[in-house]
Amino acid sequence: MQLKLVIGNKNYSSWSLRPWLVLKQLGVEFEEILIPLFVGDWRQQIGQYTPAGKVPVLICDHFAIWESLAIMEFLVEQFPEANLLPTDPAARAMNRSIAAEMHAGFINVRTHMPMNGRARYPGMGRTIDVLKEINRITTIWRDCRNRYGSGGDLLFGHFTIADAMYAPVVLRFVTYGVELDPVCQAYLEAVLNLPAMQEWLAAGAIEPYTIANYEYQV
Amino acid sequence: MQLKLVIGNKNYSSWSLRPWLVLKQLGVEFEEILIPLFVGDWRQQIGQYTPAGKVPVLICDHFAIWESLAIMEFLVEQFPEANLLPTDPAARAMNRSIAAEMHAGFINVRTHMPMNGRARYPGMGRTIDVLKEINRITTIWRDCRNRYGSGGDLLFGHFTIADAMYAPVVLRFVTYGVELDPVCQAYLEAVLNLPAMQEWLAAGAIEPYTIANYEYQV
Ligand SMILES: N[C@@H](CCC(=O)N[C@@H](CS)C(=O)NCC(=O)O)C(=O)O
Ligand SMILES: N[C@@H](CCC(=O)N[C@@H](CS)C(=O)NCC(=O)O)C(=O)O
Repeated sequence: MQLKLVIGNKNYSSWSLRPWLVLKQLGVEFEEILIPLFVGDWRQQIGQYTPAGKVPVLICDHFAIWESLAIMEFLVEQFPEANLLPTDPAARAMNRSIAAEMHAGFINVRTHMPMNGRARYPGMGRTIDVLKEINRITTIWRDCRNRYGSGGDLLFGHFTIADAMYAPVVLRFVTYGVELDPVCQAYLEAVLNLPAMQEWLAAGAIEPYTIANYEYQV
Repeated sequence: MQLKLVIGNKNYSSWSLRPWLVLKQLGVEFEEILIPLFVGDWRQQIGQYTPAGKVPVLICDHFAIWESLAIMEFLVEQFPEANLLPTDPAARAMNRSIAAEMHAGFINVRTHMPMNGRARYPGMGRTIDVLKEINRITTIWRDCRNRYGSGGDLLFGHFTIADAMYAPVVLRFVTYGVELDPVCQAYLEAVLNLPAMQEWLAAGAIEPYTIANYEYQV
């Protein structure tokens, strides 16, 4: 199967990072098609690959699959031996629940702490609703680490789709200097130290584009 | 496996309808726990079942799974013979993509055309962004019906998770009197005529609660 992943800017596109990280962790070969957002005819370029008009999009041979979570469930099925979801039913259910909670939620963190890998705005972005959502996110991280994390450094020990879904949140917490308890801080560092995350950040750091809409507004 | 589904009011809770409809279409036995939203200690009641604080929640023996889409992927796995996702890879990918597009999107339709099964507000709710989203939704419906719908009346012929995800949109289009082309109108009627949909609507129609936040604001 020939795989192509269509993504946005690595510095800004949080949804693109999620399936990109899964593909890197799988170690499968894929072609990367990067469309700088808000530059030139970017909308038409994205429209060539998906009728929904958003990145990421995974092209598999002759068909496309869009939406980060849909791409991940597809990869879960295609690569069963990678255990992108835990096999224990309760852990698997929890993994899917928190992945979907990220997919549809945390709109305040997403709005007030836009992902921006190379920027540092410590202390910024904290509205009351952002703080509530940070509280829910760190509760999720602690719950997973405590219940299912003993086999490794990630939420369910080894790498799963839940880690991919929360990876952009890790970058946000770094950019906005969110202070964490030791369990969450250790998790943050484990994600940050994945070679694929370092590769993504390094590429984003030297991208020549600044997207005004995605820069933090004081 | 013992299944319990925790839901909100049938007249208003669009997210609850989705997995409820899947369980009904599967024909499996499940206990229904209905918590009227915004009534008494409803938050504490929901909190007994899920740390995320929202309905729906599916309780399977000793563990919980929340978020409509996570519940559906769980049911897809538990009942493979029901083909809740098409088996053809391209159709399966499209089904997941549009289900996820609904899960994370169409925020304007969701805000300006709140689900309210027993009310009729023809012509209301049409902001420019709502109209754009209606256009995208009907494009999705036509695409699926044209490409994959030949074996029956639903998006992919037989019932799939995509139909469950768009079922509350069908109810919204009825409430707000959205005019549709013949293909979309036929699809709307096919969903509306599912016995489970009629059962849901009949139960919602006689619920004694009115939720001010979910009533259409002129
Ligand atoms: N729910 C989608 C979100 C995708 C999304 O919003 N992508 C952004 C870039 S990070 C995008 O394409 N924005 C362009 C636009 O919305 O016009 C997913 O999970 O993939
Ligand atoms: N993304 C969630 C949405 C669930 C949701 O928003 N449910 C509403 C009722 S329809 C709710 O519980 N609202 C109560 C609240 O948000 O406090 C899903 O897919 O299940």
